[in-house]
Amino acid sequence: MTDVLIIGLGAAGYTAAVYTARYKLTTTIIGQEEGGMGMTAAEVGNWPGDIEVTGPDLMNRMKEHAVSFDTVTHKIGFIDKIEKTSEGFKATLSGGDIVEAKTIIFAMGSNKRHLGIKGEEEFSGKGVTYCATCDAFFYKGKDVAVIGGGDAAVEGAAIAAQVANKVYLVHRRDSFRAEPFWIDKVNEKDNIIMVLERKVTGLKLDKEFEGSDELKVDGVFIEVGSIPAVDLGKQLGCELDDRGFLKVGADMGTNIEGVFGAGDVTSGSNHFAQFVTAAGEGGVAANSVFNYLQSGK
Amino acid sequence: MTDVLIIGLGAAGYTAAVYTARYKLTTTIIGQEEGGMGMTAAEVGNWPGDIEVTGPDLMNRMKEHAVSFDTVTHKIGFIDKIEKTSEGFKATLSGGDIVEAKTIIFAMGSNKRHLGIKGEEEFSGKGVTYCATCDAFFYKGKDVAVIGGGDAAVEGAAIAAQVANKVYLVHRRDSFRAEPFWIDKVNEKDNIIMVLERKVTGLKLDKEFEGSDELKVDGVFIEVGSIPAVDLGKQLGCELDDRGFLKVGADMGTNIEGVFGAGDVTSGSNHFAQFVTAAGEGGVAANSVFNYLQSGK
Repeated sequence: MTDVLIIGLGAAGYTAAVYTARYKLTTTIIGQEEGGMGMTAAEVGNWPGDIEVTGPDLMNRMKEHAVSFDTVTHKIGFIDKIEKTSEGFKATLSGGDIVEAKTIIFAMGSNKRHLGIKGEEEFSGKGVTYCATCDAFFYKGKDVAVIGGGDAAVEGAAIAAQVANKVYLVHRRDSFRAEPFWIDKVNEKDNIIMVLERKVTGLKLDKEFEGSDELKVDGVFIEVGSIPAVDLGKQLGCELDDRGFLKVGADMGTNIEGVFGAGDVTSGSNHFAQFVTAAGEGGVAANSVFNYLQSGK
Repeated sequence: MTDVLIIGLGAAGYTAAVYTARYKLTTTIIGQEEGGMGMTAAEVGNWPGDIEVTGPDLMNRMKEHAVSFDTVTHKIGFIDKIEKTSEGFKATLSGGDIVEAKTIIFAMGSNKRHLGIKGEEEFSGKGVTYCATCDAFFYKGKDVAVIGGGDAAVEGAAIAAQVANKVYLVHRRDSFRAEPFWIDKVNEKDNIIMVLERKVTGLKLDKEFEGSDELKVDGVFIEVGSIPAVDLGKQLGCELDDRGFLKVGADMGTNIEGVFGAGDVTSGSNHFAQFVTAAGEGGVAANSVFNYLQSGK
């Protein structure tokens, strides 16, 4: 039985593992993909102390740090089922493997939100994807559209504009809620065309833009936010907040004893989902696990 | 008038500055010493993504990151007085310089706690200091005592043991609340002598150890915790929590409009004072300053 099972291989999970390892706790960290949402950042810019670093590089450094401790077991896998036992918790992986743990840290992050429009699922992976910064480089010299108005959309448009011929940035409002740093970058690019106050319906626009409700593009990147991955939390009876995030207290504890959360999946850090807030929450959750186990519960 | 005045040059302040700069806010960051408490860590170990980094190196990287933005003004100085004005806030530095700002982020960290015993002030700087990891190297081949039982004390003893002849680690309890990582390091060293369940009184012990209530040492490092530097917060009427820390909400806002906090000075992150939690809080505070200014208040 491991002292702590950390679920999720992003900034929150890896930081939690660094801390639990330094607390000399046996730690198993499991996730479907290394690096989580952090992998989608082409240029981070706001990880303090690293003026220039890519998301994949930063996440790889965090992984290497976590696995540098011999009490940390790192696994790629999907957990189907998690349940309470008399000694703690039991997680069943989709291959049938079982991990038993005294405590849990949920650090599963979030999944990309879908628009739920006609043609979206049909063309998913065939020109329609959910990560502009990951996939833009496949569209060199082509025309693409990025849909959304937050950081991921605006950063994605700026990155895509470096390789694509034309980038339409389609947003349902007339202004962006992205970081001004990225808005400036978008404004500097001649090949980004703003298509504002228009919704995408069935990969058509809801009103005309330059005489047509169709944008002729080769790729569409949908960047309309994320949904916290709370399924496993719900299996254990964890409470969610009114926005659907795992509800945590100041110690990153959920309402279930021995179950903690960290990162984008939680209500922590005022819902400000960043590398640095996820990492901070990972540290707090690990400290709380340590205190919980010390208290002999 | 600057959009935001950040007070404190530690992990919280520098991270807040990186974020406010990326929000295109004019940012002035002021503190007495670069790097704050972070400078005292000889070996960090728990900054995710950097297996090996010293406190001064990490803090220098954070400073360089913050000042890489041309909207950031970095100043060394001591703020005597801070007051509310009709447009925001006015800070008066000890030399008489004035900084006016629309918003404030308090990130002053904490100051080392003193024992308040006979001889302590008298010998301060003459063999008695408050940072084992900073000052141990002046005691090569000598005998020293470290007083305390937390991370700073136990790490300090481990570091001091690398150069000193003998290190007495004096703690009033029979066990340490430091990270097990550092406790292991201390246990590995033959030249660290544990003096447990004994208080230091007037630089004498309250009960005998090996036949005497005196430890013959050349240096004494007092590492008995920290006190949040809340003086400026109190000048503005900021509420403190029951432990004397600046009381902040989920958005790192204080009870005073336009005044936020981040790092060790605050009640944030469940009082778990770490590089990574201070940085996370700096990000959240900056985001809240941005939202506050956007809302046109």
